[in-house]
Amino acid sequence: MALEQVLATIDKNLNHSLERLFALMRIESVSTDPAFAKNCRAAAVWLAKELSALGLDASVRDTKGHPMVVAHGKATAAAPHVLFYGHYDVQPADPLALWQTPAFEPEVREVGGRKAIVGRGSADDKGQLMTFVEAVRAFVEAEGELPLAVTILLEGEEETGSPSLLPFLEANKAELKADVALVCDTDMWNDTTPAITTMLRGLMLDEVIVKAADRDLHSGLFGGAAMNPIRVLGKIIASVHDGDGRIVIPGFYDGADELDPEIKAQWTALDFSESKFLGEIGLSKPAGEKGRHVLEQIWSRPTCDVNGIIGGYTGTGSKTVIPAQASAKFSFRLVGKQNPESIRASFRDFVRKQLPPDCEAEFLAHGGSPALQLPLTSPYLKKAREALAAEWGAPAVLKGSGGSIPIVGNFKRDLGMDSLLIGFGVDDDRIHSPNEKYNLSSFHKGARSWARILDALRS
Amino acid sequence: MALEQVLATIDKNLNHSLERLFALMRIESVSTDPAFAKNCRAAAVWLAKELSALGLDASVRDTKGHPMVVAHGKATAAAPHVLFYGHYDVQPADPLALWQTPAFEPEVREVGGRKAIVGRGSADDKGQLMTFVEAVRAFVEAEGELPLAVTILLEGEEETGSPSLLPFLEANKAELKADVALVCDTDMWNDTTPAITTMLRGLMLDEVIVKAADRDLHSGLFGGAAMNPIRVLGKIIASVHDGDGRIVIPGFYDGADELDPEIKAQWTALDFSESKFLGEIGLSKPAGEKGRHVLEQIWSRPTCDVNGIIGGYTGTGSKTVIPAQASAKFSFRLVGKQNPESIRASFRDFVRKQLPPDCEAEFLAHGGSPALQLPLTSPYLKKAREALAAEWGAPAVLKGSGGSIPIVGNFKRDLGMDSLLIGFGVDDDRIHSPNEKYNLSSFHKGARSWARILDALRS
Repeated sequence: MALEQVLATIDKNLNHSLERLFALMRIESVSTDPAFAKNCRAAAVWLAKELSALGLDASVRDTKGHPMVVAHGKATAAAPHVLFYGHYDVQPADPLALWQTPAFEPEVREVGGRKAIVGRGSADDKGQLMTFVEAVRAFVEAEGELPLAVTILLEGEEETGSPSLLPFLEANKAELKADVALVCDTDMWNDTTPAITTMLRGLMLDEVIVKAADRDLHSGLFGGAAMNPIRVLGKIIASVHDGDGRIVIPGFYDGADELDPEIKAQWTALDFSESKFLGEIGLSKPAGEKGRHVLEQIWSRPTCDVNGIIGGYTGTGSKTVIPAQASAKFSFRLVGKQNPESIRASFRDFVRKQLPPDCEAEFLAHGGSPALQLPLTSPYLKKAREALAAEWGAPAVLKGSGGSIPIVGNFKRDLGMDSLLIGFGVDDDRIHSPNEKYNLSSFHKGARSWARILDALRS
Repeated sequence: MALEQVLATIDKNLNHSLERLFALMRIESVSTDPAFAKNCRAAAVWLAKELSALGLDASVRDTKGHPMVVAHGKATAAAPHVLFYGHYDVQPADPLALWQTPAFEPEVREVGGRKAIVGRGSADDKGQLMTFVEAVRAFVEAEGELPLAVTILLEGEEETGSPSLLPFLEANKAELKADVALVCDTDMWNDTTPAITTMLRGLMLDEVIVKAADRDLHSGLFGGAAMNPIRVLGKIIASVHDGDGRIVIPGFYDGADELDPEIKAQWTALDFSESKFLGEIGLSKPAGEKGRHVLEQIWSRPTCDVNGIIGGYTGTGSKTVIPAQASAKFSFRLVGKQNPESIRASFRDFVRKQLPPDCEAEFLAHGGSPALQLPLTSPYLKKAREALAAEWGAPAVLKGSGGSIPIVGNFKRDLGMDSLLIGFGVDDDRIHSPNEKYNLSSFHKGARSWARILDALRS
């Protein structure tokens, strides 16, 4: 069996794989601090050299910020062409004093009863991206060529919001287009259960400014007769949800399909502790739509939150003012086929209808993007699920992500590709914090997982 | 008739009275700017000298800030002892460029078809306080003595919140105690209709901080499951009033008596334009309790306003955060016998009862004071009404004031005196603004009004 040889190669080479990962982790590629710009470039150069050594056509590509690494590898197989995405930049190591060993001197040691690779970037994202590179290496070593056509795109600005990524995608569409994207920057369900993130909620951001009198008023002289915009805004905020936590804006749920029964059954059966999840942030009761599982509430149901509010006097003490205006920033998480701009229009109508006499509302649009969902019928998904189940002995959880992962939207909109989000991080990896770690099993079985996935995709 | 002689003396001396007022107005006694501290003292010294010349025992009394002027005058009459209060400090003259004539070079000229004294302090409060001093002078000149025992208290920090006044009252209670206080720092109803301010709303200030999770949360990762304190606060704000604008906090209206029918009839009959009053601040409809006259809403009805609110991200753009807390500053205007501290307790209970699971509320008390009301049965009020009606040929409007006038509360609580608030300013005097003016008729008939009031009180 060809796959068995590839997996055996990964097992045999594990120590060498670790040495290569350590070499990459020693490069202090902190993207946010200009003092480390040279280190970022050094990481890109190191990766391009490594990929070239595997026979890929790799190059360091300049941007206005830190460079991209792009590598292309051809294959005999007429199988799908995959684009792999990862990032080589890392968060700053501060506060340095809290690291048990230096952030950029990686080592393997026991953490919480498991062997782990400790150091900045171990889990986010150097360790993760190297699982894919090591899988590719094993194919080259065992079979003499890549399993399928591969493009690898590694950026150096993920930790600073990826400012160069979209322009780079747009300028190099033809070069980067593939059949499906593989993204390795997410977590497993737990130490032993793999996961694929298939649902990403969309987002619509809108700001409301309620105005009443043409100036701030003395609340003694006018209080009782003058409209108070904070009160009006409070009423608007209070009226968005009904008593069951449902949003009452007309048409809001259009396109917000119910969860597929298979996924719902999977989530319900998961070993998930609501009290632990909420307890970690000081809460105990899910505050969302009644009758929904917490995972549904955060992964597959749309929401409305107020992210900020301000009006009147906000300093210490008191000031008896009725302010001329008050404003609030609303965000709506969207799912399924909900249309951000239709919802924006409906929200604004809803607000306007609640304005009492003498009040007006101004609005500021802060962007919007639809939800993304990998169809359950995707053949790539099917193969990846089988591959992960074979490696881990447990079916992959098909997760949602409540937050947005912009790269996935860009791949979909600009390059017309779905993305398989598969990663091997776990909850306690402490990414962005001191003593970041990546389980040795994540690294090892992650590489094996990619080998199985690539093998499955080519068949 | 003795009074007729006093009034004739005022008429005869009008030009000299104006010269004295001008001398006082030329002293740039701006209290807020330390550069003018010497001018403030100079104004106090000028006043003490002026009062001494009238036979009063006058002195300049140091405080931590600008000095007080206190003057005592004895009288043959066993009549009530009155304490007169006014202030000699003024607002800054800025913006200087907008003055048609220099702020501190007073003159009489026609303004809006009426002769007026133009200059900083003409209406607020030098012109007003000098109406009383000139009335006293006329008694001394016409009758050789004061009509009744008078204490005059003039402060120099009214425009900066009177920081020294309460300590001075407390330190000199015995000296300052009188039977009734006369305060000349308010307005008439209009150019030709006098007014006495007999109702001052009280105030209770409380701040609410709603807390949920123990940290700020990512609204993507937790939105839909996590409690949002801004939403909770919005609901609290929205729930304070019912659809008719009434406050639903239990017990809130206890002690908020209905307006005396006589006063209500007077207010209803007043030449008052709701649309003009609201139109000046860009509004058109009274927003308070349904079925109440606007004057009732602002003078004799209690209110709840939110004076400030803040929570989450309030900078430019958006941030997808569910904040750990949000806070709002509430103020309640109180009337009649409403008890600030009972209402504070009831409000806090009301807030706590609306908190959903996992939310708590913290409170910050920012002070409170009950409403003040001069009883309609007060013999001093009766005499002042008769005196004003005789001078102006129109009954005095018994006004309310929606804002607080702290000195009146201090006189009541610390010295056990009611206050008669009688002043001769009008709406368009532009106090605190460039081209401040005081109608010549206000100055002249103001002095005559005080002469009549003092005469009435002694009888």
